[in-house]
Amino acid sequence: MKQSIGAKPLAFPTPAWVVGTYDMNGKPNAMTVAWAGICCSNPPCISVSLRKATYSYAGIVENKAFTVSIPSEVFVREADYFGIASRKDENKFECASLTPVRSELVPAPYVGEFPVVLECKLLHSLEVGLHTMFVGEIMDIKAEEYVLDENGNPDIERIKPVIYGTGNKSYYSIGRNLGKAFYIGKMS
Amino acid sequence: MKQSIGAKPLAFPTPAWVVGTYDMNGKPNAMTVAWAGICCSNPPCISVSLRKATYSYAGIVENKAFTVSIPSEVFVREADYFGIASRKDENKFECASLTPVRSELVPAPYVGEFPVVLECKLLHSLEVGLHTMFVGEIMDIKAEEYVLDENGNPDIERIKPVIYGTGNKSYYSIGRNLGKAFYIGKMS
Repeated sequence: MKQSIGAKPLAFPTPAWVVGTYDMNGKPNAMTVAWAGICCSNPPCISVSLRKATYSYAGIVENKAFTVSIPSEVFVREADYFGIASRKDENKFECASLTPVRSELVPAPYVGEFPVVLECKLLHSLEVGLHTMFVGEIMDIKAEEYVLDENGNPDIERIKPVIYGTGNKSYYSIGRNLGKAFYIGKMS
Repeated sequence: MKQSIGAKPLAFPTPAWVVGTYDMNGKPNAMTVAWAGICCSNPPCISVSLRKATYSYAGIVENKAFTVSIPSEVFVREADYFGIASRKDENKFECASLTPVRSELVPAPYVGEFPVVLECKLLHSLEVGLHTMFVGEIMDIKAEEYVLDENGNPDIERIKPVIYGTGNKSYYSIGRNLGKAFYIGKMS
């Protein structure tokens, strides 16, 4: 029996991704988002939603670019820190002992230590409400060799990404393989 | 050392959610999506991206509504089936032995057996490329009692949602709790 629990921003799973931007002085900034997802295959695009009040919002509007750095579970504390810290005069990268690396493709920095990063050019902005949705075209993905499989593709089991659980507001690792997509659902 | 792996629609994690719609004849349809995510807290909104070629696309445009049904891992085969099947004359719910339940709030059906469902009113459509992004306002969430915690909130550990892994195109369960958000990253 289903119960109504009201109109809330809850869904399972959501990601924990770090959006990288430069401010108007060229200072690197990073902010963790969970309101985000792939939104198109061709051109490959990703969307991230930010409140106007955030420092990163202005960085995206200013540079028309952002990066998405995907933490592995060993960086869950740093990812959480990037979601908590908000002081505009704080150097978040330095406080987290992480390295801002300037993308060669777009005017935005990514987290050097994270295993997978997406370099994005702003394509669309959509005012939804409290949050503005930014759609970025993925210009390239950079990945550490140790997360690539034998075919050179990033392997989620080597990346060990972080899942954000809405509701109890906790982070999770990925668990066991449940089967191949476009295969296990074939019904005869 | 990071390697360039090109411009691809890859990110980790992505969800496996079933979008429910009615067609112009009132027939229930369901389709699994991974290009999706929460995109606003207030009003609570979720976005799902579909190709124009899908049957569900027309259903959303026609009814200006959709549902998002969140499978638990015991339904991973059914979720995969909803992503594979595409014949317009096939009754997907019947083939999957699942029940289309008419939402009382929006003209769209949800999957009765799945533990959490979101009922959404279409707010925005954005043409991104191959995919169109639909932003829906979450009018209500319905959840089975067995996934609610002692405070009445959906608990990801009881829901046991499905994660879609881009790259190797496999499904995963959620793993272990890595810590509380807005807490473990506090640096002194």
